[in-house]
Amino acid sequence: MAAVLHVCMTCKGQGEYDPEAPRAGLGLYQALAADPPEGVVVRPVECLSACDHGCNLALSAPGKWSYVYGRLDADADLAEIRRGAALYALSADGIVPWRERPIIFRKQSLARIPPIEVTND
Amino acid sequence: MAAVLHVCMTCKGQGEYDPEAPRAGLGLYQALAADPPEGVVVRPVECLSACDHGCNLALSAPGKWSYVYGRLDADADLAEIRRGAALYALSADGIVPWRERPIIFRKQSLARIPPIEVTND
Repeated sequence: MAAVLHVCMTCKGQGEYDPEAPRAGLGLYQALAADPPEGVVVRPVECLSACDHGCNLALSAPGKWSYVYGRLDADADLAEIRRGAALYALSADGIVPWRERPIIFRKQSLARIPPIEVTND
Repeated sequence: MAAVLHVCMTCKGQGEYDPEAPRAGLGLYQALAADPPEGVVVRPVECLSACDHGCNLALSAPGKWSYVYGRLDADADLAEIRRGAALYALSADGIVPWRERPIIFRKQSLARIPPIEVTND
């Protein structure tokens, strides 16, 4: 199964907030959905519970670490988000080697969660 | 399968940091592992990539939303962590009704990630 990139559509972004304008997160979702990273399914989500740090997105896949990244710019960071998500999809465990990882992913990780391994518990 | 509570053992906590003392996260892990919440498997993890916000933990289970909580106190918050984790384990989708959710879980969520649904992608 492909990796999943959940993009929050309701994020306000880090700049000045204009309540009349479309949400920054919506623009980020639309841009990524229109041209998804290789091996990645892009899905909208209404909230990733990291609202102070928008724009936010999450990368996850069965058997891999999940990552949440924040303070992303819906325009300037698009190319690096695509590159980082494609590398995530290629990785065995979700951990992309540090040097290959986009700087936005190195510096703007909000949290990560280990894979749920099958156990006899 | 039971819900999984990953507890970061290397978190320094929010108080003054004493490099000679055991990490606050280690104490939190040991306390939870010694008396796990009902329906929950407690697992240690080395880093949840939210180091400024320790002590951190993550709740996850197949088919449910995952949550990462931070700024937890390894002593004062133990009972409410146990209560909230048990409610998470009982929930269908990982979303515990707001009024039942411990205040630390309402106010100290760092991020959440939707479940990975099976698709034909």
